[in-house]
Amino acid sequence: MLFHVRMDVNLPPAMPPAQAEELKKTERELAQSLQRSGQWRHLWRIAGQYANVSIFDVAGVDELHALLTSLPLFPYMQIQIMPLCRHPSSVRDGDA
Amino acid sequence: MLFHVRMDVNLPPAMPPAQAEELKKTERELAQSLQRSGQWRHLWRIAGQYANVSIFDVAGVDELHALLTSLPLFPYMQIQIMPLCRHPSSVRDGDA
Amino acid sequence: MLFHVRMDVNLPPAMPPAQAEELKKTERELAQSLQRSGQWRHLWRIAGQYANVSIFDVAGVDELHALLTSLPLFPYMQIQIMPLCRHPSSVRDGDA
Amino acid sequence: MLFHVRMDVNLPPAMPPAQAEELKKTERELAQSLQRSGQWRHLWRIAGQYANVSIFDVAGVDELHALLTSLPLFPYMQIQIMPLCRHPSSVRDGDA
Amino acid sequence: MLFHVRMDVNLPPAMPPAQAEELKKTERELAQSLQRSGQWRHLWRIAGQYANVSIFDVAGVDELHALLTSLPLFPYMQIQIMPLCRHPSSVRDGDA
Amino acid sequence: MLFHVRMDVNLPPAMPPAQAEELKKTERELAQSLQRSGQWRHLWRIAGQYANVSIFDVAGVDELHALLTSLPLFPYMQIQIMPLCRHPSSVRDGDA
Amino acid sequence: MLFHVRMDVNLPPAMPPAQAEELKKTERELAQSLQRSGQWRHLWRIAGQYANVSIFDVAGVDELHALLTSLPLFPYMQIQIMPLCRHPSSVRDGDA
Amino acid sequence: MLFHVRMDVNLPPAMPPAQAEELKKTERELAQSLQRSGQWRHLWRIAGQYANVSIFDVAGVDELHALLTSLPLFPYMQIQIMPLCRHPSSVRDGDA
Amino acid sequence: MLFHVRMDVNLPPAMPPAQAEELKKTERELAQSLQRSGQWRHLWRIAGQYANVSIFDVAGVDELHALLTSLPLFPYMQIQIMPLCRHPSSVRDGDA
Amino acid sequence: MLFHVRMDVNLPPAMPPAQAEELKKTERELAQSLQRSGQWRHLWRIAGQYANVSIFDVAGVDELHALLTSLPLFPYMQIQIMPLCRHPSSVRDGDA
Repeated sequence: MLFHVRMDVNLPPAMPPAQAEELKKTERELAQSLQRSGQWRHLWRIAGQYANVSIFDVAGVDELHALLTSLPLFPYMQIQIMPLCRHPSSVRDGDA
Repeated sequence: MLFHVRMDVNLPPAMPPAQAEELKKTERELAQSLQRSGQWRHLWRIAGQYANVSIFDVAGVDELHALLTSLPLFPYMQIQIMPLCRHPSSVRDGDA
Repeated sequence: MLFHVRMDVNLPPAMPPAQAEELKKTERELAQSLQRSGQWRHLWRIAGQYANVSIFDVAGVDELHALLTSLPLFPYMQIQIMPLCRHPSSVRDGDA
Repeated sequence: MLFHVRMDVNLPPAMPPAQAEELKKTERELAQSLQRSGQWRHLWRIAGQYANVSIFDVAGVDELHALLTSLPLFPYMQIQIMPLCRHPSSVRDGDA
Repeated sequence: MLFHVRMDVNLPPAMPPAQAEELKKTERELAQSLQRSGQWRHLWRIAGQYANVSIFDVAGVDELHALLTSLPLFPYMQIQIMPLCRHPSSVRDGDA
Repeated sequence: MLFHVRMDVNLPPAMPPAQAEELKKTERELAQSLQRSGQWRHLWRIAGQYANVSIFDVAGVDELHALLTSLPLFPYMQIQIMPLCRHPSSVRDGDA
Repeated sequence: MLFHVRMDVNLPPAMPPAQAEELKKTERELAQSLQRSGQWRHLWRIAGQYANVSIFDVAGVDELHALLTSLPLFPYMQIQIMPLCRHPSSVRDGDA
Repeated sequence: MLFHVRMDVNLPPAMPPAQAEELKKTERELAQSLQRSGQWRHLWRIAGQYANVSIFDVAGVDELHALLTSLPLFPYMQIQIMPLCRHPSSVRDGDA
Repeated sequence: MLFHVRMDVNLPPAMPPAQAEELKKTERELAQSLQRSGQWRHLWRIAGQYANVSIFDVAGVDELHALLTSLPLFPYMQIQIMPLCRHPSSVRDGDA
Repeated sequence: MLFHVRMDVNLPPAMPPAQAEELKKTERELAQSLQRSGQWRHLWRIAGQYANVSIFDVAGVDELHALLTSLPLFPYMQIQIMPLCRHPSSVRDGDA
């Protein structure tokens, strides 16, 4: 099941750089692990923004919510979710 | 070069059904042709909306604009474009 | 899987009353059938609006989209969807 | 009488974790007590958000306001209320 | 129970003047009857707008919805409702 | 002359409780005095919000501005004003 | 008493040109008469818009509303009103 | 050349009162000097807001920008500019 | 003097194609003439939109307004204007 | 390839002036170097705002994103990007 997720990151200016770096490093490792497992199907940077557009491929809403809230940057992100489904004009059956 | 495109379709209620069907049929054929050529990389329906989220993979902005304005439904669509780039945490080099 | 759906209805003023009545009647029959099958779990009128808030309990996004687009009033509705999940403070396991 | 309530929580980043935990714990106990009394009829997490959608079943607006302002997280929440009523197509008389 | 209601009226430009006058006349009679019964407690014109701000004093949400949808201009109005309650600094117990 | 005023209060989280209480106490006393003088004609709490809807009955805009800026909470409030006039369907001449 | 008024004009595209011209002519005559009487103190075109910013100097809200609704273009205008008062840094006592 | 300028002031709550007073005093002196020179043609307080509406009469955009950025409160203001021109229905040639 | 202008075009769907073509042809000729005279300094299409971003270099606001309202498509355009001035970091004195 | 970029700068009020000056100085040097290389084709100040409108001429989205994120003020800017293409009515082939 596919979900379109936009994440905008806002780190507080007062956060010590070391803490920010640690957060980003852990975030990156988890993001890459979820990409390799196939759950985080696409991950793109929006040009000029500290934000991304992602496609998640999960078994359901609970799994999606569990993944998102497990992200180290979750407390600093604004997240918008749109459920997706197959487009009748798509040439691919499982366009993940 | 990747672009995130959202298209919302609004056909005028007074359009004769035959004309609407003809428009949609031509649109579908062109959309499928562009998917096969690799320019229209992804095409998803937004659940509950007469709208889609698409990823285009084109040589540049001019090609993107030419593709979008060639769509039969273009006069009836509201279109929003976001340029995308590779995310530093992506595990794939060319995540099209 | 639960989804929160808000539907705002806008019938064109020029629609003949008989056609509007027929649409609403078919809509009501389908809505009641889907409530009885358990897929349309809740249906409330928003006070003072020609709009409703609904909770759907479906197997996934595709089923939700199929249900919504099968509604006779679908072409005349603006629809917003929010995926829901179990709240950690809920006292009920399956709060449908 | 049913009211649709959306609550978005924003804890200040500088709040000490122990204070936040204590607030959440007290909030959870009160939320569960109000669910058991039947006043807080439904409580769902909005996926990907520190926010919930709730249905309250109360005797009137004063009772609703008293409940909401008694929540320990009230000073940190943005709250939107929509009065609901029975939908003419609902198959249930008292769809709480 | 008090509700704050804002109504913005939009009559279609193509409506024949006689029909518009008849609608407004019936609306006025009903509005005055509801004011006399005490249910429509206040009715003010917003300066420069074809819109009003009203205070309704009703037994509950169902009665409010029934009143509003019975108005002849209801199909041509955009309505926003805010539930009100007694303000702790009010000097009057029942400030209707 | 009637004015519809909405006030949303935002006290800074870092304000010492004693200072907040003192502000609210002085605000309440002034609000009650202005209600008794007839200038602050109505004062209602918006349910679920730290906000109120008020009706002021003043000699003109200067008096209204002087009253609002004299409120102890003024520096912490967002204020929206709408001038009101008699509604042609009102049954009361001076509906204050 | 001064009020800041912004008027945006939207004539329906289907209005016959002769009717539009007649409306504008009558509007202009009334606008000029109200400027000469001192009630319509300033009248400026917003560059690039079919819209104006105006300053009215009237005895009160009722007079303002009566003036605005007497304008021939009133049914085709969107109007926003802001009450003004003397600025403490103004060098003129009656800055109309 | 006339420009319509709206300025909303937001002083940080933590600013020491003496500093705020000094800023406002210098602002007032400059504002009055610019009014006397004819560049700051009108200055009105928006009722209930820490905001003003102003009309500037300057030789061009560069002069306007230089004036605005020279204001002591500039770093604490949100500014919106609309270029104005003579309205065809104005009775005054140079309606400054 | 430079102004940033965004124009969004909305031709009514019912306009006969011949009339639309004639309008666009006259518009193009005038746009090109104004570019050659140096008043319409830049003209870019916004990708995927029936809209443009333009830079005008004119003697003042009156000239800008006269140019814009002389465009054949003016009645069908939504126009937003932002006055520009030289940026202190620009390497060019007259960056038209 | 042309991109329209708007940048709004928000320096935190608590930033020490020396740090702010250093940031702005480095920003200016980089901005001027990018203008001389032809990548930052235009740079205008929006009147009355701490904001600019810029036109970038780059090989693609990746180059644009790399340039923007290399700016010293990037962490303090809100950035909006619109891809541009040649307008059919432009008199210049390469209107950079």
